[in-house]
Amino acid sequence: MLLRGAYVNRAMGTTNRQWELSSRPTGEPTTENFELIESPIPEPGQKEILVRTLYMSVDPYMRGRMRDAESYAEPWDVGETMRARVVGEVVESNHSEFDTGDVVTGNLYWAEYAVADADELRPVDPDRGPITTSLGVLGMPGITAYFGLLDVGEPKPGETVVVSAAAGAVGSVVGQIADMAGCHVVGTAGTDEKVEWLRSVGFDDAINYNDDDVGAAIREACPDGVDVYFDNVGGPVTDAVWPLLNVRARVPVCGQISQYNAESVPEGPRKLWKLIETRSRVEGLLVSDYAGRWDEALEQLGEWVRNGDLQYREHVVDGIENAPEAFLGLFEGSKIGKQLVAVGEPAR
Amino acid sequence: MLLRGAYVNRAMGTTNRQWELSSRPTGEPTTENFELIESPIPEPGQKEILVRTLYMSVDPYMRGRMRDAESYAEPWDVGETMRARVVGEVVESNHSEFDTGDVVTGNLYWAEYAVADADELRPVDPDRGPITTSLGVLGMPGITAYFGLLDVGEPKPGETVVVSAAAGAVGSVVGQIADMAGCHVVGTAGTDEKVEWLRSVGFDDAINYNDDDVGAAIREACPDGVDVYFDNVGGPVTDAVWPLLNVRARVPVCGQISQYNAESVPEGPRKLWKLIETRSRVEGLLVSDYAGRWDEALEQLGEWVRNGDLQYREHVVDGIENAPEAFLGLFEGSKIGKQLVAVGEPAR
Repeated sequence: MLLRGAYVNRAMGTTNRQWELSSRPTGEPTTENFELIESPIPEPGQKEILVRTLYMSVDPYMRGRMRDAESYAEPWDVGETMRARVVGEVVESNHSEFDTGDVVTGNLYWAEYAVADADELRPVDPDRGPITTSLGVLGMPGITAYFGLLDVGEPKPGETVVVSAAAGAVGSVVGQIADMAGCHVVGTAGTDEKVEWLRSVGFDDAINYNDDDVGAAIREACPDGVDVYFDNVGGPVTDAVWPLLNVRARVPVCGQISQYNAESVPEGPRKLWKLIETRSRVEGLLVSDYAGRWDEALEQLGEWVRNGDLQYREHVVDGIENAPEAFLGLFEGSKIGKQLVAVGEPAR
Repeated sequence: MLLRGAYVNRAMGTTNRQWELSSRPTGEPTTENFELIESPIPEPGQKEILVRTLYMSVDPYMRGRMRDAESYAEPWDVGETMRARVVGEVVESNHSEFDTGDVVTGNLYWAEYAVADADELRPVDPDRGPITTSLGVLGMPGITAYFGLLDVGEPKPGETVVVSAAAGAVGSVVGQIADMAGCHVVGTAGTDEKVEWLRSVGFDDAINYNDDDVGAAIREACPDGVDVYFDNVGGPVTDAVWPLLNVRARVPVCGQISQYNAESVPEGPRKLWKLIETRSRVEGLLVSDYAGRWDEALEQLGEWVRNGDLQYREHVVDGIENAPEAFLGLFEGSKIGKQLVAVGEPAR
């Protein structure tokens, strides 16, 4: 134990920087809602594991946790450290399942260090690919795309699949799986650079909703209508897809990022009639419902990534001090792929 | 043939009164949109059958047919006779399947007489119950309720089922089937008389959306949330149910009568986030998708009606000249149960 302690102290500093929610945002969050706190590095208790964060993930769902409202998960409390999916390295382990130096992922904190129970962590095999992928294409976003498209969307060869926020961590995987499934795939995104990238990774067409008349552009890109609409954004893009739904269309609802900063529930066209006309199915999805099936998805996604069938992009912001800016960038929508924060360097 | 002709001429007048769509309504339809035309009684050709209407059905979906817009069915043309489900009597048959005097039902016309092919008609057994039920509880509305609730709604014992337009031809059957399925059943309707009737036929609670704070009243009537929301109305009643949806709730969308007279698509709260939170499924339904399974539904519904397990109400307006008023009454919402027009007396 002494030796391990010495190793830890050498690799670590003595303080743990972490971000607290300092106030709840009204509308669009700002850096004022976050406060960087320093405290001593926590000590793992019996059977606990101390993890040093290498990368943390910022995700749109976090906006929901900053709101004081009931949802599928508890809101974050003001004055508490915010949660994030993290990939990190075990620096001290009191549990037989994990050793110092192991790379792990889990739902931990916006923090340099965290203490976790063994059942909160999953091992990451660094030989399988860059460890950052465990937060993206081979992590929660990739698995969301996999089950959301295949289980809820049920795409069939020859069908048309439209994906909103298609250049994001989830949408880009959805579109490429739909392409492999033999579908005609159309994505919407907010910059020309994203549109170009989408076309290069298997999307048959991509639409910049800021430049184009999105309704006309989607109609033109989907001459046979829309069989699956994988919705990450809601709002006007979703309104534009709705009239194109085919009979028995499926609409997996994964996110509504265009609505997350609204201070009250926005109004939009009442659209339920279209569901009668087409007998379409609109269904919400949460990846946590598939907790028992992650390995199934990871095996397939991993194979596709190794084969080069599944491309991904990551945008890494350096330093935990810049985590709020990385998070706020999600709502600007200028960055492609998975948004990450590099928090620490591997010890080795 | 001469004998049959003589019989027919005795029972019939010589003219056929029928309603044409004279103009498309803007907003709420008025009697000005309909014109009563007289023409000679049509003659059935080879293999055709001449049917004299006894009762015709008026239904909310007809408002959609008066609109010049693509939908699941062709719009009605201005200057043409409008369609309606009818129960009538065969007055002349050139087809071996039907005899003079047979009672039949089919999708015919707002007319005293119609010529039909054999495959457009279904026999009605007058000994099974009042022939009007073939347009209501043992017809299209009852079958819509049966499959919409059981196949799309999938109610389980102990779950809470909310039905809008619960005192209507569809809603009243939905609620009673849900009650038989062991559910806690709550209906919304627009008059105190309807509320009282619903409570008398097995609804655990019923809410007058004109009198009550509908949101608060539904919340109070559904202490365990809502597992199935069978939507016939859309609009504010649907908005009031939405926040109460439980995890994995099902929302069969059968009608949106509150929206049918709108001149443009109304706006309302954007509600898709709730589907993510609850992983609920919202799905449109049309009874025509169950064309191959009508007998299955009719057998079960017929048994329930004979047992007294399934109550129904009908409101009959006398005389084909009053058919438009009967139709317009659907949007006032003051009448309980199936809305019918008595067009002719049985010959015997």
